[in-house]
Amino acid sequence: MKVLGIIVEYNPMHNGHLYHLQKAKELIDPDYTIAVMSGNFCQRGEPAIINKFARARMALKHGIDIVFELPTIYAIQDAGGFAYGAIGVLHKTNTVTDIVFGSESADINFLEKVALLLHNQPEGFGQLLKKELKKGLSYPNARKYALKNFLTSSSDEIKKLEKSNDILGIEYIRAIFKYKSKIKYHVIKRIGSNYNDPAFKGKFSSATAIRRLIKEKKDISQTLPEKNLKILENEIANGRGPVFLEDLTCFVIPLFRKMRREDFEKIYGFNEGLDLRFFKYSRECGTLQSLIESIKAKRFTYSRIRRLILMTMLNIEKEFAELSNKYGPQYLRVLGFTKKGQVLLSKIKKRTFIPIITTVSLKEKVLQKVRNDMEKNKRNWDIVPELYTRQLELDILSSDIYTYFYKSEDQRKSGMDFRKPIIEG
Amino acid sequence: MKVLGIIVEYNPMHNGHLYHLQKAKELIDPDYTIAVMSGNFCQRGEPAIINKFARARMALKHGIDIVFELPTIYAIQDAGGFAYGAIGVLHKTNTVTDIVFGSESADINFLEKVALLLHNQPEGFGQLLKKELKKGLSYPNARKYALKNFLTSSSDEIKKLEKSNDILGIEYIRAIFKYKSKIKYHVIKRIGSNYNDPAFKGKFSSATAIRRLIKEKKDISQTLPEKNLKILENEIANGRGPVFLEDLTCFVIPLFRKMRREDFEKIYGFNEGLDLRFFKYSRECGTLQSLIESIKAKRFTYSRIRRLILMTMLNIEKEFAELSNKYGPQYLRVLGFTKKGQVLLSKIKKRTFIPIITTVSLKEKVLQKVRNDMEKNKRNWDIVPELYTRQLELDILSSDIYTYFYKSEDQRKSGMDFRKPIIEG
Repeated sequence: MKVLGIIVEYNPMHNGHLYHLQKAKELIDPDYTIAVMSGNFCQRGEPAIINKFARARMALKHGIDIVFELPTIYAIQDAGGFAYGAIGVLHKTNTVTDIVFGSESADINFLEKVALLLHNQPEGFGQLLKKELKKGLSYPNARKYALKNFLTSSSDEIKKLEKSNDILGIEYIRAIFKYKSKIKYHVIKRIGSNYNDPAFKGKFSSATAIRRLIKEKKDISQTLPEKNLKILENEIANGRGPVFLEDLTCFVIPLFRKMRREDFEKIYGFNEGLDLRFFKYSRECGTLQSLIESIKAKRFTYSRIRRLILMTMLNIEKEFAELSNKYGPQYLRVLGFTKKGQVLLSKIKKRTFIPIITTVSLKEKVLQKVRNDMEKNKRNWDIVPELYTRQLELDILSSDIYTYFYKSEDQRKSGMDFRKPIIEG
Repeated sequence: MKVLGIIVEYNPMHNGHLYHLQKAKELIDPDYTIAVMSGNFCQRGEPAIINKFARARMALKHGIDIVFELPTIYAIQDAGGFAYGAIGVLHKTNTVTDIVFGSESADINFLEKVALLLHNQPEGFGQLLKKELKKGLSYPNARKYALKNFLTSSSDEIKKLEKSNDILGIEYIRAIFKYKSKIKYHVIKRIGSNYNDPAFKGKFSSATAIRRLIKEKKDISQTLPEKNLKILENEIANGRGPVFLEDLTCFVIPLFRKMRREDFEKIYGFNEGLDLRFFKYSRECGTLQSLIESIKAKRFTYSRIRRLILMTMLNIEKEFAELSNKYGPQYLRVLGFTKKGQVLLSKIKKRTFIPIITTVSLKEKVLQKVRNDMEKNKRNWDIVPELYTRQLELDILSSDIYTYFYKSEDQRKSGMDFRKPIIEG
């Protein structure tokens, strides 16, 4: 049995995603295909344009058999954390055989070489990295130059470390090494626009371009499959979105002003003086955009700044993030499945290392059952109970914050997570 | 030398306030008049309609010689805490000789009798109070019936405990007892509308009615003295307000959703299951109004619920509030003075028990000077240094949060408190 796993955000799922999925299926010829998808907040440090259930439905209508949620703690981390979570979900199904990811270079040998290097962390490389960081470069840039020097790569080759999909690809492979996973990995060359190219490019527009069109209330009918267009339009018509980062402004700026210096210390990621910058500029700025622009500096990427906003808003503490980055995802949260996916789900249920969550209100019962099994050494369970609870509570909180920013006041109730998964087809 | 002290919110200062001030002056014939005024948040649990400096200017243009800010920790407490702070400021000037306050009943003997009873807290009264609270009444109501039974008052007399000014008056007198202050107190009968009568009543409209008119963009020219109308219009024209409670919605609701159960425990005032109610209903409600209506119950007044919103938003911890209610205000914050007031201010400077703050950026220096004096037993200083810092920092935070909710994005910079005081006339 071949089970293909892919890692997505589908924010929203567009023609380019569809093409990628088809190519991946052609390459693997799987019996089943599952996706691990970001929930209501994404890796660029932004809320998703519509909620995770609507986005899962898009996937289920286009050839994905099961959609698992990537726990929020991973969805809003940098490439390393994101990949560790996403590969973790796929690996811990103990069922996925192959993953396919998009890559600008599609040079799997080079990506693998870099991943292996990062996995092994030879001493010389660490020193080179430190040297570059001291120059005031951002971490991705410092790493790029350190790799260039260590591998004595050509300029051409090193450019592969600048593309967001290649960077993610390296981290996926690295995570596979970390989990000692037997999953086989494959790349396919990306077509169409760059990951975050805001320019409109017709049928194969980037998700960033599509979100911008939505914000400007322009026509997007060319860019999405028809069914997804309907799903999106239905969400918007019902006042559930679109949600944009700017909508969070009036929550986030007073929140930062309210924070004392010691409150910053607790949150994951406020290194290198970023706490001071947030403390200072949240007091000077009246809009989120001016806040982000003021904080921006050579060594901090925009995504990192935005992600810190989410980290703060969601109260993500250092110790929790570090434990999550040590032990990986603690559950398989099912957002939806097709009838075909249901068959696979029952196979996964028997094989997985971590509990499957289909009904969030049963989370305590599920945990108790796993605890009982663990005490009796009954199954190969691999969870840290305290972390299971915290990861799941964060997903619930993420939804509760997210839904508050719906356009319609009537839709702002929380508790989205207590819905049953979607069953399609 | 006679120095009259009055306690105000001036939100905004209207014809009724002016009348009250004139009557008070006729009664006392003071050499100087000072006011202690709420800052940017008021005792009803709402933001002030315009900022404290603009409101202080209104007072200085109409016969007040110095405006001191009532530290935020007192301004947003119930009548007891509010009065303890306000009387504390006046008492600790060590210069005020008389205070005058408005009263619906103007029955000073009865108010005094109740205040003395509350000050002495005889055993029998405490038992009666507990009994009434057990019936599920709000604290003000339970106290009213306990007093009725204890004093075997007539129904007529006991009605005096239902009027907001009489309730405050009792607390003012009680605070004077607590401080063992020599300040003489006087009442004058209130004219015009009730404190929070929303109905428009012409020239003597209540502040509540005026704020409502402003919200509805209706004519208020009849209700305010001309100079105050100009000040108000100028603030609004420059995008600094009007600020309404509803404006805080998008900060407050996600903030409550973000809070864990243990976070509520730290904040002052979440007793009697109110934490649970906020936890629950912030998840169900999309607007502040529906949140407040959902939380409302027989035993909780609207003001109490609104004040809890401010307490949370401003991170007011139990221990801090309790210390403040034990030691009183720790500084005299000058918002503005007239030329005449400047003469009085230099007298106060020599006599006060707590430091005068005219320039907030010098707060550390002022504290250091007081500390030095205290070490050398040089003066009759009466402060707790740690509390001085916390009270002042809360005032600064209040302004930083308040200014974020200005209509104009350009005006949302924080740091209002670092302005020099206003000098008028």
